[in-house]
Amino acid sequence: VETNCGNLSKVKLTSPTALPNATGFLWNQNMVMQVNCRGYVNSLFMQPEPAKYSYAPNMEAKSFIQPEHSYFSHHPGRFFYLKDEDSGEIISLPYEPMRVQLDSFSFELADSHIAWLIEHRGLKIEVKVNLTEFDLVECWLFSVTNATDKIRNISVYPYFTIGYMSWMNQSATYNESLNAIVGDCVTPYQKVEDYFKHKDFKDKTFFLSDTKPSAWHANQKVFEGEGGLHQPTALQADLLQNVDARYETPVAVMQFKQKLLAGEQKSYQFLFGPAKDDAEIATIKEKYLGEQKLIAARKDYLAYIKQGKACVTVDSGNAGFDDFFNHWLPRQMFYHGDVNRLSTDPQTRNYIQDNMGMAFIHPEKTRQAYILAVSQQTINGAMPEGVLLYKDAELKYINQVPHADHGVWLPICLLVYLNETGDVSLLNELISFADSTEKQTFSRHIELALDYLIKATDHRRLSFIEQGDWCDPMNMVGYKGKGVSAWLSLATAYAITMWCDLCEEYNISVNQQRHEEYRLAAKMMNNAVNQHLWHDKWFARGITDEGRVFGTDKDVEGKIFLNPQSWAMLSGASSKEQQTKMITAISKQLITPQGAMMLAPSYTAMVEDVGRITQKHPGVSENGSVYNHAAIFYIYALYQVGQNDLAFDLLSKMLPSIDNAKVTGQLPIYVPNYYRGAYHQLPEQAGRSSHLFNTGTTSWLYRCLVEELCGLKGCATGLKVAPKLPSSMKQISGQRLFRKAIIDFELYQQSEVDTVEILLDGQVVTGNILGDLKAGQQYKLLVKLPIVEQ
Amino acid sequence: VETNCGNLSKVKLTSPTALPNATGFLWNQNMVMQVNCRGYVNSLFMQPEPAKYSYAPNMEAKSFIQPEHSYFSHHPGRFFYLKDEDSGEIISLPYEPMRVQLDSFSFELADSHIAWLIEHRGLKIEVKVNLTEFDLVECWLFSVTNATDKIRNISVYPYFTIGYMSWMNQSATYNESLNAIVGDCVTPYQKVEDYFKHKDFKDKTFFLSDTKPSAWHANQKVFEGEGGLHQPTALQADLLQNVDARYETPVAVMQFKQKLLAGEQKSYQFLFGPAKDDAEIATIKEKYLGEQKLIAARKDYLAYIKQGKACVTVDSGNAGFDDFFNHWLPRQMFYHGDVNRLSTDPQTRNYIQDNMGMAFIHPEKTRQAYILAVSQQTINGAMPEGVLLYKDAELKYINQVPHADHGVWLPICLLVYLNETGDVSLLNELISFADSTEKQTFSRHIELALDYLIKATDHRRLSFIEQGDWCDPMNMVGYKGKGVSAWLSLATAYAITMWCDLCEEYNISVNQQRHEEYRLAAKMMNNAVNQHLWHDKWFARGITDEGRVFGTDKDVEGKIFLNPQSWAMLSGASSKEQQTKMITAISKQLITPQGAMMLAPSYTAMVEDVGRITQKHPGVSENGSVYNHAAIFYIYALYQVGQNDLAFDLLSKMLPSIDNAKVTGQLPIYVPNYYRGAYHQLPEQAGRSSHLFNTGTTSWLYRCLVEELCGLKGCATGLKVAPKLPSSMKQISGQRLFRKAIIDFELYQQSEVDTVEILLDGQVVTGNILGDLKAGQQYKLLVKLPIVEQ
Repeated sequence: VETNCGNLSKVKLTSPTALPNATGFLWNQNMVMQVNCRGYVNSLFMQPEPAKYSYAPNMEAKSFIQPEHSYFSHHPGRFFYLKDEDSGEIISLPYEPMRVQLDSFSFELADSHIAWLIEHRGLKIEVKVNLTEFDLVECWLFSVTNATDKIRNISVYPYFTIGYMSWMNQSATYNESLNAIVGDCVTPYQKVEDYFKHKDFKDKTFFLSDTKPSAWHANQKVFEGEGGLHQPTALQADLLQNVDARYETPVAVMQFKQKLLAGEQKSYQFLFGPAKDDAEIATIKEKYLGEQKLIAARKDYLAYIKQGKACVTVDSGNAGFDDFFNHWLPRQMFYHGDVNRLSTDPQTRNYIQDNMGMAFIHPEKTRQAYILAVSQQTINGAMPEGVLLYKDAELKYINQVPHADHGVWLPICLLVYLNETGDVSLLNELISFADSTEKQTFSRHIELALDYLIKATDHRRLSFIEQGDWCDPMNMVGYKGKGVSAWLSLATAYAITMWCDLCEEYNISVNQQRHEEYRLAAKMMNNAVNQHLWHDKWFARGITDEGRVFGTDKDVEGKIFLNPQSWAMLSGASSKEQQTKMITAISKQLITPQGAMMLAPSYTAMVEDVGRITQKHPGVSENGSVYNHAAIFYIYALYQVGQNDLAFDLLSKMLPSIDNAKVTGQLPIYVPNYYRGAYHQLPEQAGRSSHLFNTGTTSWLYRCLVEELCGLKGCATGLKVAPKLPSSMKQISGQRLFRKAIIDFELYQQSEVDTVEILLDGQVVTGNILGDLKAGQQYKLLVKLPIVEQ
Repeated sequence: VETNCGNLSKVKLTSPTALPNATGFLWNQNMVMQVNCRGYVNSLFMQPEPAKYSYAPNMEAKSFIQPEHSYFSHHPGRFFYLKDEDSGEIISLPYEPMRVQLDSFSFELADSHIAWLIEHRGLKIEVKVNLTEFDLVECWLFSVTNATDKIRNISVYPYFTIGYMSWMNQSATYNESLNAIVGDCVTPYQKVEDYFKHKDFKDKTFFLSDTKPSAWHANQKVFEGEGGLHQPTALQADLLQNVDARYETPVAVMQFKQKLLAGEQKSYQFLFGPAKDDAEIATIKEKYLGEQKLIAARKDYLAYIKQGKACVTVDSGNAGFDDFFNHWLPRQMFYHGDVNRLSTDPQTRNYIQDNMGMAFIHPEKTRQAYILAVSQQTINGAMPEGVLLYKDAELKYINQVPHADHGVWLPICLLVYLNETGDVSLLNELISFADSTEKQTFSRHIELALDYLIKATDHRRLSFIEQGDWCDPMNMVGYKGKGVSAWLSLATAYAITMWCDLCEEYNISVNQQRHEEYRLAAKMMNNAVNQHLWHDKWFARGITDEGRVFGTDKDVEGKIFLNPQSWAMLSGASSKEQQTKMITAISKQLITPQGAMMLAPSYTAMVEDVGRITQKHPGVSENGSVYNHAAIFYIYALYQVGQNDLAFDLLSKMLPSIDNAKVTGQLPIYVPNYYRGAYHQLPEQAGRSSHLFNTGTTSWLYRCLVEELCGLKGCATGLKVAPKLPSSMKQISGQRLFRKAIIDFELYQQSEVDTVEILLDGQVVTGNILGDLKAGQQYKLLVKLPIVEQ
């Protein structure tokens, strides 16, 4: 693995076998594709619910996206067989399905394209894919250069999976006027009302070429023959036999026989995607086929991805660290914020946190999102399970289960938006409810949510957990209506405090008495957690319906949970002394080379008063993985209590890097939702990435970088400067965009100072707030920090 | 392909590539497995809804069973790699995944087991699988014999697919005390109520051996390595590495290193199946492991399958014909009747027709089934969409769509039960309703169903089709409430007539006036069909909501449908002259080498006032395949109107045979639900079997053999003798079991007679009814028939 290949935005993998599950991803608002280094691809598009155009070989379940996706030989992919017509040798590119060892291999992930550079027996091959800004099409370019001084005769056979489209109707054939193989199907259904829902579905899959093929094949089974995918029978013949698929599994294969003179290069352009009909395919063809059009499309798509530029770039001297923070993390954060994980009903907590990240990129999107979220609140104050993004969207999967935490996120995350923009006008927006046309201010919506949370507590003032809180699968602690959550109690206290603090800081006009009551409620909840859930060295996780406190040393599994400790620090429930004990316990029981596990030991058997989390595989997802969303909460909390070195250490562990790629199995282009935990129970699997780039981690991780590590945090009166450099990072420089001002900064530890010294354009700043920054103006900020000892 | 291998109950296929999709199937009341000649297996068990224990490599959709199942390299299977430790050669048995050409290959389908006999490089291998009478276990025996005169050193590696079990939790490891690889998972769910539903699920998959393995492997991906399934990396080592699967795709592989002296044989027994826990596995092990136990289990299982013996055996001189009718068809019919296609909510029409077949095997089962069916009728007379077979069963899939035909089947099918048993007591059984505890006689239930049907007609007295009739996907002819069905009108008339005739024949006390009204209603419906739906040469299929008559020569596609013609013959709606026209039109437009297509031309585009049928692939299922259920209705109807030669010709076309195996792709052990049609549109695919052995065809096909061809049909007063031998079958002999009497019969055409002559035990019978047969007594029946000219 290499990064920084010439510029800062490329990650390169030079072996197809070292990290076999490594992937990159491309997306636009209508589709996403995850591309594996060996040529497998997962892709989907929205119509408006997620749909496929390149399918598995069998009838695959529709499901939410799963971690640790498993590949197998007939997994959907985009492959290129290459026959040397002179020697007869056949290889496949980029690596699957034949797995022939290539002279050289490079899988390259850039901003807005993914490419392979391959050399084999004197041929240089480049394969490259990009998406477009809006359309449903993969743009592929396959170039082959004869690097020898002899004439070479070859056949190139792109093999693009169409797969098992439908039991109702599936077929494929070559369409001469489009110069495309077009697969056709009818999305299966049985009820007449679904016919009308499906009527405009894009049930065709096209594979279109700029070059007329010598021959083609559309029948997967016949193509493969007895030879198998690793040695397809159809390739034995001089020419493919032009075979249809008629209620048979379709595939898109073309053959291009080509003579290459010494040094000659030949390129083929391919377009692959879903369409409703031939006219749509023709439109896509017209729009994207041809070199100039491809170049234009790439440019536009790059411009789209570049919209994900966020508010800070840094130079810490650690190229991997910098590249990740400057480039890949904002890219991932933009993906979350701009397309909402390509879900039409994102969980409310995800939606709010993902859009917190968007405040560092396009705060106006955050504003819209937060208004949309509260417009789906019910008038009793309850926030919805998921935010419906179009009229006919429905709450699906986990959003059909009642979770108790959806009200806490907006008061917690709102501050980032205000800090970045100073836009208090949001709080006075008048917004209606899901179940009422009555309009209330945004502020009132938040307070209704807080009121609802405060009411949803028991006699001890602990928050009912219902069928889960942030931890979705902790569904049986309180399903009988009695069980409570330590985390949610703390999160509620924190949300209340954040709201009150925010109103004070931004001078929001509030009902003072109500705010005093809020502060009191928060305090009493903190007290209740201390009274009922502090157990010797850490906070327990909750109390079950039957009154059993769990998440303590008395448990054999699930002794300690990370979240209550982190949030006790955030909510103010924990004393310094408690914090020391908690940190010690965490360090002993939860820390792994990839960061802090969410709980330990992982459950290995069902605990009926805890629930589904205990049935998940040990070390996977919520059952004790290094669940990065929880890990970043802990890091953020550590920053709040001044544990900067520890926070930075854990933040570093979380970052995917070249160094840990062998363990995680992924490339350093996104933070995954988890690394395998159960470190002491299953050490062999520990550290593996979930390869899932959907995660609430991104916005908090970026927040830690901007607001904590660099300490360049917006506030009511300007930009507050309070860096939290660890002992291991003596200096960091960079550029901060803040309310349209541009601040070039240098932060460094210097033995000559013993308190922070701040210079703006050479002038010493009193206090630590840059209060008078002008939009459009560029500043130079120098911050001298006392040396931090280890 | 060979049949009659030594005895009448074996079908042999001697190539793994000639019919790559050929399968056999085994079942008991709790599970079924469909075994492909190359080693792929589809299996499921009931808990009580269908579940898997050997899964696809990805998250597969739960669905009803689909036609033309597609296999691919990682499809679930049971394979055996075999390494010659001396030469290093590795092969796989029975054929997949390596596809090495074997010296000899034989796939053998018997009553109660499926086996392969293979020879390769001096090794003789037999692989055999059977099920047990009740339990959830596949019993495998792998035997290898050294047929050379040298010592041979080999390793045998059974590779049994466990596959992608669950995204929540999946793992596998070797359990030493069980000597088994045990895969474990948690059936995925998200709602707390499902936990309680799933609690007792059999979430483990075990692979258990009688021999301690030299080594084992439980991790699919690691086993396969870079070599691929066709050359697994793990087999390169001397010994497998004993690798677990931990939230990785499990597999069950064991290695048995074995030295074989010249002539020595070694056998391995394996048990494979689902279980709730280790204790259950231990119980299965105790019950079935060991040679004697295996022999006993096989015997019991054979006895179970033999319960499917039906009431006739024939000797026509055509071995394939006889074998199919004597053996395979009753077996398939017994499968349908005994386990209801392993559905917990069989469609009412299937349930009633499948149990009509059971009347030829175990009529008491038919009786129970018919009582159960009417107990789920609502008091308004409507029969349910599906019959729920256990308390918590739910109507699923197509049973959630309203179909108008469910009331017609019982009056039509009941006669077979009465003819076989003479048990009129059924008609007086008092039975309650789905929505009322009020009890009514079985007769009254039937009449309520008829009343409901008679009412469900329009001003023309044509039956409303709602969202489908017998033809499920004809869902948009009448979804607005107006469209009518020619077929259903005719079927209603036929059902009424059948009921009235039956009551007369069996002297059932009825309300005479009501029965006169019934006969009048039937007549008027027949008239209405003639008035509104006869179009020149055949009957149309119906009239849409907007009043468009369809299924006529005016249509470009779907010009002619088979069912209205068949049922006009049955219901008495058609004159002789009309019949001649219909038969001519059918012969011209619908007949193919595999029989009569259901309609023609097949639709190639959606017709919005016909519906989903027009969206199915041309020639597939209801859209113009040779849909055998419809084809057998036509054959049965032809027998009713005296078209014996044509009926027999079409019946012969329907039968799977050695001769047509190359076209159908299946072995002659079941009648499939369809052969591909669209004969003139897509000739290349025409004739292919659906490979689906669930079909309403079986009972009607058997009925045609017994009641029509052999003409040995029960009636109120005894056994009516009225053979309908075609010109091409000059004689047939056999044995008929009838109300516990045993009748050895010989039927033959003789030029010396010009009317039928019947001799029972040498005595001439007057009339054609054998009226005085005694249970337990054996008779000799000789029937001389006039020569039938072609």
